[in-house]
Amino acid sequence: MSFKQITSSKNAYIKEITLLKDKSKIRRKSGLFLIEGAREISLAIKGNYALETILFYEDLFPEEALNKLLITTINKPEIISISKEVYQKLAYRDTTEGILAIAKSKDLSFESLKFENKNPLLLIAEAPEKPGNIGAILRTADAANVDAVIIANPKTDLYNPNIIRSSVGCVFTNQIATGSTEEIIHFLKENNINIYSAILQEAVNYHEQDYTQASAIVVGTEADGLSETWRKASKQNIKIPMQGEIDSMNVSVAAGILIFEAKRQRNFK
Amino acid sequence: MSFKQITSSKNAYIKEITLLKDKSKIRRKSGLFLIEGAREISLAIKGNYALETILFYEDLFPEEALNKLLITTINKPEIISISKEVYQKLAYRDTTEGILAIAKSKDLSFESLKFENKNPLLLIAEAPEKPGNIGAILRTADAANVDAVIIANPKTDLYNPNIIRSSVGCVFTNQIATGSTEEIIHFLKENNINIYSAILQEAVNYHEQDYTQASAIVVGTEADGLSETWRKASKQNIKIPMQGEIDSMNVSVAAGILIFEAKRQRNFK
Repeated sequence: MSFKQITSSKNAYIKEITLLKDKSKIRRKSGLFLIEGAREISLAIKGNYALETILFYEDLFPEEALNKLLITTINKPEIISISKEVYQKLAYRDTTEGILAIAKSKDLSFESLKFENKNPLLLIAEAPEKPGNIGAILRTADAANVDAVIIANPKTDLYNPNIIRSSVGCVFTNQIATGSTEEIIHFLKENNINIYSAILQEAVNYHEQDYTQASAIVVGTEADGLSETWRKASKQNIKIPMQGEIDSMNVSVAAGILIFEAKRQRNFK
Repeated sequence: MSFKQITSSKNAYIKEITLLKDKSKIRRKSGLFLIEGAREISLAIKGNYALETILFYEDLFPEEALNKLLITTINKPEIISISKEVYQKLAYRDTTEGILAIAKSKDLSFESLKFENKNPLLLIAEAPEKPGNIGAILRTADAANVDAVIIANPKTDLYNPNIIRSSVGCVFTNQIATGSTEEIIHFLKENNINIYSAILQEAVNYHEQDYTQASAIVVGTEADGLSETWRKASKQNIKIPMQGEIDSMNVSVAAGILIFEAKRQRNFK
């Protein structure tokens, strides 16, 4: 098959795409974002993301692999063959996969969340800053198959290439929403979901709390912890006993420990 | 008090120190390494590291704070007042703390490990690559107050500034050792410490295993998992049930889940 070709990295369209990679504002305005890598694109397809365009560098990613990858797309993306020069301009770093996609953002408002589980388990992170931590949290949420991940007061859009990469595509496999802390608390109360906030004050040890009913486990930032609003909205504050010299943990590790204690209590069902 | 002053970043001694920051080889050869930040230095002092030199930029770190910081040092470091220019050359990045120390490396051979606990709990990571993951693992190990952390077949020296920083100084608060996988397994068997390797094959779910006896929990890299040698040496392989689309987790999150399950079973004692 013959595809549209772009061989110059100075091509106007390629310049536009580069902005999608670098500028959160452009992603928001256009409703589009860039995905790099076959595994990530395949998870986006599984997650029912519409792909607008595929860009591939044939020496690295053969047409056969491309056809296989695109079998289950919910729409028909335009396919563009790009040169090594263009690929290197677009690719995030020393990956050698040779494939990128432009995809449509999803509506991440939490009103669209749907729970099949009668007693859903939610992971909520307030204002996480580092893409690496958000990525690790999304991987944990995928592994635990939580019913939803909610990011309160996000500092960046979730289609940031660093988040996509550090989540190894789990930004596409989780049911995700974002919103303000106030909106989210309102939503949780309306849906009778118990709030367990990771806050030291008036807290019980995390493993002494029962999470088998509808539960939202909420973690804050390492620097500031959770805001007062969460403390007030909590059914019970929870804490991980700290027995060393320092009093904090990596936020994605803490989230993992809490979520998997809830999963253990639920017998991983 | 008046201190030795260094005001030029071209000073030969400052150039030497810069190498300590950047070159693992120079750290190994000299047996010295650089620590940045008051909290990290204070944890190194608590951890009985000998400080050879303190460098401080007085506008950011006043003499009074310095005296307080150094009250409990096991030796008397030379104190050098440095200019803003020198400080900026040495400082890792946009920190504004104004203090650095040159410290002596410790012997990290695992033969020097001592256990007060009759049934010690050890965390072992084989060949972890990313300083951020090693740092997060060391923070978890500190929080859980494990009896020792062992790094098998390390890819970098532990006094890498990225590890010190991402561990927020927990590289100094843990009892740590490094060695080859074979040596470590020999050591564990000799000390009757049960080996639980995070390996999918022939594994039980991690929460169904009892860790109340002397236990070493062993995790491998995200890319390659654990080597065959660990599988053979295991008393029991353990796995975290994966219920999502992907089959892997961030290694520091996985280590946190496993270690805190062991702590939970031990009632955090």
